[in-house]
Amino acid sequence: MTDVRNLSTALQTITEAWQPHRLATVNDHDVKVVKLHGEFVWHSHADSDELFLIIRGHLVIQLRDGEVHLGPQDVYVVPRGVEHRPVAAEAVEAILIELAGTVNTGDAGGELTSRVRELD
Amino acid sequence: MTDVRNLSTALQTITEAWQPHRLATVNDHDVKVVKLHGEFVWHSHADSDELFLIIRGHLVIQLRDGEVHLGPQDVYVVPRGVEHRPVAAEAVEAILIELAGTVNTGDAGGELTSRVRELD
Repeated sequence: MTDVRNLSTALQTITEAWQPHRLATVNDHDVKVVKLHGEFVWHSHADSDELFLIIRGHLVIQLRDGEVHLGPQDVYVVPRGVEHRPVAAEAVEAILIELAGTVNTGDAGGELTSRVRELD
Repeated sequence: MTDVRNLSTALQTITEAWQPHRLATVNDHDVKVVKLHGEFVWHSHADSDELFLIIRGHLVIQLRDGEVHLGPQDVYVVPRGVEHRPVAAEAVEAILIELAGTVNTGDAGGELTSRVRELD
């Protein structure tokens, strides 16, 4: 029997923005929880689409040809290879779904780079 | 640019229990919304794990060696090949994540069988 996780509890344990934590794994995909606050870096993921499901707050995903505004319970998928930049003027809580091994900053690297972390 | 979907809106459009509707696709995986009410059939999915994220209500997932009780915001993954039977004494709203093409009744078939449906 695998473990039951709770989304609210998981979010409470996360203190830093831009640090995805693994909530569950389904086949070769990770379901992560993350807090977002401020401006991220422009990047893309060559090998995976990236799904955002907003739990709390409002997130803008900047794209090279426009931007997407997301509020609570909104779902949006950034296709693989598409450059994007999440911007959270206020604190945002979200679920991310992507291929396991996907790094948050994709091809961009930099100081915000974080591999997925495990929840306590 | 792909479409933004809203989880609440999607759930409002679903009238029947046990009919998964596609909310989004991430690579080769579907993210579905579903209402559950009553007793489902015993089944397993040979080719895919199945993630349950409970949005509303309480769900029991019966397993051959026990059962798992899930409430709002709980996440549980039934591993591929593991026989299970969801039982919802009251109406439940949930997200399912699994390999695209996975049929709800898995190896069991029967009258509750439904391929994923598209939201309006």
